[in-house]
Amino acid sequence: MAEKTMEKIVALAKSRGFVYPGSEIYGGLANTWDYGNLGVELKNNVKKAWWQKFIQESPYNVGVDCAILMNPQTWVASGHVGGFSDPLMDCKECKERFRADKIIEDFAQEKGMELGEAVDAWSHEKMKKFIDDNQVPCPTCGSHNFTDIREFNLMFKTFQGVTEDAKNAVYLRPETAQGIFVNFKNVQRTSRKKIPFGIGQIGKSFRNEITPGNFIFRTREFEQMELEFFCEPGTDLEWHAYWKEFCLNWLKSLGITDEELRPRDHDPEELSHYSNATTDIEFMFPFGWGELWGIADRTNYDLTQHMDHSKQDMMYFDDEKKEKYVPYCIEPSLGVDRMLLAFLCSAYDEEELEGGDTRTVLHFHPALAPVKIGVLPLSKKLNEGAEKVFSKLSKKYYCEFDDRGNIGKRYRRLDEIGTPFCVTYDFDSEEDQAVTVRDRDTMEQERIKIEDLDAYFEKKFAW
Amino acid sequence: MAEKTMEKIVALAKSRGFVYPGSEIYGGLANTWDYGNLGVELKNNVKKAWWQKFIQESPYNVGVDCAILMNPQTWVASGHVGGFSDPLMDCKECKERFRADKIIEDFAQEKGMELGEAVDAWSHEKMKKFIDDNQVPCPTCGSHNFTDIREFNLMFKTFQGVTEDAKNAVYLRPETAQGIFVNFKNVQRTSRKKIPFGIGQIGKSFRNEITPGNFIFRTREFEQMELEFFCEPGTDLEWHAYWKEFCLNWLKSLGITDEELRPRDHDPEELSHYSNATTDIEFMFPFGWGELWGIADRTNYDLTQHMDHSKQDMMYFDDEKKEKYVPYCIEPSLGVDRMLLAFLCSAYDEEELEGGDTRTVLHFHPALAPVKIGVLPLSKKLNEGAEKVFSKLSKKYYCEFDDRGNIGKRYRRLDEIGTPFCVTYDFDSEEDQAVTVRDRDTMEQERIKIEDLDAYFEKKFAW
Repeated sequence: MAEKTMEKIVALAKSRGFVYPGSEIYGGLANTWDYGNLGVELKNNVKKAWWQKFIQESPYNVGVDCAILMNPQTWVASGHVGGFSDPLMDCKECKERFRADKIIEDFAQEKGMELGEAVDAWSHEKMKKFIDDNQVPCPTCGSHNFTDIREFNLMFKTFQGVTEDAKNAVYLRPETAQGIFVNFKNVQRTSRKKIPFGIGQIGKSFRNEITPGNFIFRTREFEQMELEFFCEPGTDLEWHAYWKEFCLNWLKSLGITDEELRPRDHDPEELSHYSNATTDIEFMFPFGWGELWGIADRTNYDLTQHMDHSKQDMMYFDDEKKEKYVPYCIEPSLGVDRMLLAFLCSAYDEEELEGGDTRTVLHFHPALAPVKIGVLPLSKKLNEGAEKVFSKLSKKYYCEFDDRGNIGKRYRRLDEIGTPFCVTYDFDSEEDQAVTVRDRDTMEQERIKIEDLDAYFEKKFAW
Repeated sequence: MAEKTMEKIVALAKSRGFVYPGSEIYGGLANTWDYGNLGVELKNNVKKAWWQKFIQESPYNVGVDCAILMNPQTWVASGHVGGFSDPLMDCKECKERFRADKIIEDFAQEKGMELGEAVDAWSHEKMKKFIDDNQVPCPTCGSHNFTDIREFNLMFKTFQGVTEDAKNAVYLRPETAQGIFVNFKNVQRTSRKKIPFGIGQIGKSFRNEITPGNFIFRTREFEQMELEFFCEPGTDLEWHAYWKEFCLNWLKSLGITDEELRPRDHDPEELSHYSNATTDIEFMFPFGWGELWGIADRTNYDLTQHMDHSKQDMMYFDDEKKEKYVPYCIEPSLGVDRMLLAFLCSAYDEEELEGGDTRTVLHFHPALAPVKIGVLPLSKKLNEGAEKVFSKLSKKYYCEFDDRGNIGKRYRRLDEIGTPFCVTYDFDSEEDQAVTVRDRDTMEQERIKIEDLDAYFEKKFAW
């Protein structure tokens, strides 16, 4: 099999309408991306698939959709105002600015040095000392003349109202989770759920990353799918294991293979001070293993923080046990954009066909495929009949009507965008009211009555 | 029929989990709102219904999903940097800040004066003169001692990257439309669409309004559903009429009545300088007529502006007519939040029942109802069987399982959140494998075999 490279995937994404560089006609805006006519369908399908299994079919969970702009006290309580920052320093010679921890990591890797622990946990003094002791050079100009290291907060700040003073400062949320925590009591009251239950949310978050990159893997503006699952203290490790399994099953049910996945449990010394257990599910991207899903047991940390800061009661009354407690919380947190990238990478294939021909094909799971069914009149003379089929199928599925070029080329084009089925309307269709359905993966064809298409595809798209 | 008031609707929205005040535990954040466990489902259904008719089933249109943060040149070209502002002035006595046009409008209304034209089109001089000539008092302290009027830009500004200097300033988009315009050529290329065709987008926009209000009608953070439909110059008025009709039909197909709607064509003098025609579809809210949908013929204004500013070719080559032109554009632009509010208001009813009883009911169209089906075991002893029905139905529909209280109360509760159907699993169900299905609006009941429920509901939810 030909090698999957980011270059090929980015090129296909751009040329086929999955992802364009953002604001491209103005030379772009550093690491922003726009989803095109196929990208938006793929992204919506990823979100739908998450919502379906995590919310709709779940006997435990409900959803919310909270504002991006929140009362700034939220971010004091959550720790983001105080602690959500990167250590930065400037080169005094060339004026470039860098993350100190990244410079150290890159230097160590280049020199084959073992650092033993994560550099971002080092103190500023320790970083500064390492840089001085090793005479680490500026990555841009090569000199060694840096400013001191200082912390740079990663939240985007803006001003609401007419004056730009501190009392009007608000942040773009850096995660969707806190909208859930501040509404814990509201949702519990209106949904009448009993512990254990969860609250899920899909929405945009913003982090002013110094070094975004790898296409849509790390961007400043991104979309999250987060679940906060509340349970009784002491049952948290069981539920952590439950959701870890649930997430892995969700990925596999959508076509990700075991070989592409690596669940990595954090060592005790790697855990945040409030966490009892954390697992990162990593995916094998063409650029290496990258974190896909973080599943953290956050204990009662967040609700307690909000209780302390807001002076509001965030406790739950268990009416069977007749006791009150602050629930523990398991948080499976997933980025939509990097999940989409993983599905795109996983689906990508270049196949050799009989006769020496090759095709590029995206083997998307049918639930994810942006175009579900291609509708192809064999000749433009047959457009009228084919349009009726298109109109019927579009009630349920996002379809594409394609009447241009020879049928083989149209199949290739639809393979390349991952369309699982093509329906060809030919001259016989006028007589027998049937069409040929071609399967993307097997390339086999079968003849199906038009009136039976609904039932046929209902089975094919069941998930 | 009892009067529909905003007070009742806001109270129901909060108590039932449609809409909570944003960041409520911290005393809120001026006019932000969070959608609760039912609100998120309703909102998703509104967006789905738009996407289904405007994109999925449309032979003309495709979608995109563009970044909120765009290259700032976009907003220079679109006119938002120069012209998207409100005229503000301060009272020198009490230091309060006001919109000069609003003060004039309120004053004129109070005094019964006819102004003849929209005040927001007046020059600063004209406003200032009116305020001085009429000795208009400060609404807060009653004195007449104002600063000069100056323009306040409504875009939220933030900084991307590590320094807060002008070259890093970016705006939160004030509309989704421009993401479509800057990608016009990208989408046309990757979708291979020919004129006429449209590009639709759903997403958040932000406007730093001085006077937001009326619950979720006008908020600083809001979601839009915009279509930009590109056509040949000269055909624009026809297409404007087409989309106006299409929008009205969409609203009516989802249960909005003629009496609640007022399409208002702009007079020639009211039109923007670039517009050939604009229609506002207004909805009768409990607080009066409010704009719901703006359908504007924007001619070739936006693409021309971007062509001028970016120096990129935004022309379309018509390969049948062998000519190149900048397409004209029809823009039906709708706010998700106010659309949701309109559906909520339209659906709200208090009914007198036989026997003098009353019920509050939301007559949502089945496609919009947040909970599609309530699943109710008649007794907790029947939970196991009822859970199987729930699990089967939730594969397709968002359902609620409710085993608490007597069945009459459960029906009332599900009526109040607009659930179109309830499925009751009773002692006979164990024997006959059938359930009772109750219709929210007629309150009639019928007995349906469990194995036939799928087909039964497929018809009921067809739209």
